[in-house]
Amino acid sequence: MTSPSASVTSRDSLAIGQRSLGDPSVRFPLWPPLTAGCPVTSTENVSYPVEVDYAYDEVPAGLFTGAAGQPRGHDRWAPLLPPLRAPGLGEGGTPLVPLGDGLWIKDESRNPTWSHKDRINRVTVSAAVGAGAEGVVVASSGNHGASAAAYAARAGLRCVVIGSTETPPAVEAFLRAYGAVVLSVPVDARWPLLRRIVERFGYHPVSNVTPTHTGHAFGPEGYKTLAYEIFTELGVPGAVFLPTGYGELLFGVWKGFAELVALGLADRVPRLYSCEPAAGGPLAAALRDGVPATRVPVGETAAYAIGSPVGGYRGVVAVRESGGAALLVSDAEMAAARAELAGSGLWAELSAAAGLAGYRQLGPAVEGPVVCVSTSSGFKDRDLLAGGRSTEVDPEDWAEVERRVGATA
Amino acid sequence: MTSPSASVTSRDSLAIGQRSLGDPSVRFPLWPPLTAGCPVTSTENVSYPVEVDYAYDEVPAGLFTGAAGQPRGHDRWAPLLPPLRAPGLGEGGTPLVPLGDGLWIKDESRNPTWSHKDRINRVTVSAAVGAGAEGVVVASSGNHGASAAAYAARAGLRCVVIGSTETPPAVEAFLRAYGAVVLSVPVDARWPLLRRIVERFGYHPVSNVTPTHTGHAFGPEGYKTLAYEIFTELGVPGAVFLPTGYGELLFGVWKGFAELVALGLADRVPRLYSCEPAAGGPLAAALRDGVPATRVPVGETAAYAIGSPVGGYRGVVAVRESGGAALLVSDAEMAAARAELAGSGLWAELSAAAGLAGYRQLGPAVEGPVVCVSTSSGFKDRDLLAGGRSTEVDPEDWAEVERRVGATA
Repeated sequence: MTSPSASVTSRDSLAIGQRSLGDPSVRFPLWPPLTAGCPVTSTENVSYPVEVDYAYDEVPAGLFTGAAGQPRGHDRWAPLLPPLRAPGLGEGGTPLVPLGDGLWIKDESRNPTWSHKDRINRVTVSAAVGAGAEGVVVASSGNHGASAAAYAARAGLRCVVIGSTETPPAVEAFLRAYGAVVLSVPVDARWPLLRRIVERFGYHPVSNVTPTHTGHAFGPEGYKTLAYEIFTELGVPGAVFLPTGYGELLFGVWKGFAELVALGLADRVPRLYSCEPAAGGPLAAALRDGVPATRVPVGETAAYAIGSPVGGYRGVVAVRESGGAALLVSDAEMAAARAELAGSGLWAELSAAAGLAGYRQLGPAVEGPVVCVSTSSGFKDRDLLAGGRSTEVDPEDWAEVERRVGATA
Repeated sequence: MTSPSASVTSRDSLAIGQRSLGDPSVRFPLWPPLTAGCPVTSTENVSYPVEVDYAYDEVPAGLFTGAAGQPRGHDRWAPLLPPLRAPGLGEGGTPLVPLGDGLWIKDESRNPTWSHKDRINRVTVSAAVGAGAEGVVVASSGNHGASAAAYAARAGLRCVVIGSTETPPAVEAFLRAYGAVVLSVPVDARWPLLRRIVERFGYHPVSNVTPTHTGHAFGPEGYKTLAYEIFTELGVPGAVFLPTGYGELLFGVWKGFAELVALGLADRVPRLYSCEPAAGGPLAAALRDGVPATRVPVGETAAYAIGSPVGGYRGVVAVRESGGAALLVSDAEMAAARAELAGSGLWAELSAAAGLAGYRQLGPAVEGPVVCVSTSSGFKDRDLLAGGRSTEVDPEDWAEVERRVGATA
């Protein structure tokens, strides 16, 4: 195991404490990180998340102006992140790929473990280091677990991933490569086992442990960097469409833009559109019913990364405060969006295409520029190998070659 | 198909012509791109490559100083690249991840199709667009074909990938997603079929067609950006270790640093170490025998991406002119390096770990800082699924959970 680089320090964080989303006047010190939501405002039915507060009046001049010599990725934004006590892997700094007509794809498959989850795990594994934990534990069948395993390996922490037999083959291969302990259990047993491992081994949980979703207090702060990056490259777009499971990504992007407004750098936030699988959609249901968070039954969907039965209050805040809307996209719409992305050279996971699927559903009436966040790479899909293998062609059979190439000499 | 972005133009290229590596006084106009090496100096036994020449005295001031507002990836370096007539996907701009003790990993798995090959294919597909071709054709069982397919899709060109039944499952899945025609044929039939498709359909070849390797005249120019990026971030390192198949990557990195010296921005080039699989090693053989290029038998190796029987003159130039050396690394050394990378949170393809394997072979006597280029992601390996699936654990069986976690409460 290598030691953290000297360039990774916590010296620049302006984080000053934690604050309840249930009641912003309810405040907590920065340490220890609250991993089970707000202990004051949460009820039996709704768990309220906690967020991080900063000394905004001390943000360095020039942080957002792209001066030469800025570090890259999360380290650039360290003042507006919780202390980065775990070494980085070059997370963030992903490209905005222009597809024409004012549409940009923020391609998060360029992260260290090829998904947006690296933005959150740099922060949560840093919290584990700061809290003195020997390991982290995460319930996940996909990107979140893989990312936690990578950051834990880099930081020299143990990592337990509580997955299921639904974990895609490629994801299991790289979890193992990172040295994580993978415990496959029935889906309903995942959260009780996670809580028990937290209690018995003192491992730091980097995924959710509450009845409605709260996740880790520090986690969504890592997603704010998406907003900062979009802002420094494009300014404030008209709309951002985001694949949505628990709403942490949505909240982080909203908070990042809201901070830019509070700092006087931007005059508005973009409209944020949550894009949930139509088979479920707890955020759309909560907004429709006017409740902070709810549960819904989830039908069949191949968008396993975002097919969540339970929502959280963060997503409600982001959609409501940004003037956006909650969209539901079918598997067919996501598959069409995935094909559109691949036809432009971007191979996305089905869930990752939910953002573009949402934009295509609303159509050109949406005021641009439009950014669709594509969260992850196609190799994470469960149906990776469903296409089978190609059959060999006889190179001497020119008629067959012409037929396959679809061209005539 | 979307139209190229307005930001992608050829207006900034300073390319003025092509020049033979066999005899630099043998020059050709810039168009058409020479796809079969130098027609003047090549012999029956040795094919000499061609490179691109530029109006170096017109390089804009500030190109290397990282001023704000620079475009990212290849577009930033357009003056020192052949005309970028195909739209980009945000290639390049990959992070240098510090592993401590002066060792940096240049993680090329952060490219659009998750390998270094995107640097070359932005350039070769641009050449195809510039040459007016309707399609490109490439012989490849891995990263090169996948990357060509993505850039062809983005540019609206057809793409034929001549692969084999050895193509890894994940690679075949994403070739199909990009809409490429995949023709699997016996390995020996690949190059004759490629030449025939070029002749009959007028498709532009973006892989090699000559007896010893020359590849595409414009291609390795795309790898120069690796040198530019390393230089702007670190200055000139002591040494760079590179996974080596045909030596195009090696040559591109060497040429990039040599240009920096010629421009008066750097005072030397780093020592470049080629890292070939010990099962083959045509570059090491050519350097040992004092010939421009040679063929060797190739034994068993799982490093399929670089297990080449034939070398080319470019690699000889790069190792000799940089004062480096040709290393041979065993599969066991690559596997150990791959495990070391994964233990630091970076999941690399076996071939991609050849650079670190070479550095570990030489040991700490190498003058640093040291950059090891990791060319691609672990999901491209043929043995992706060899580890099998994890078995389910009974969450109530706490003794078994403790045993697997390796910790005691």
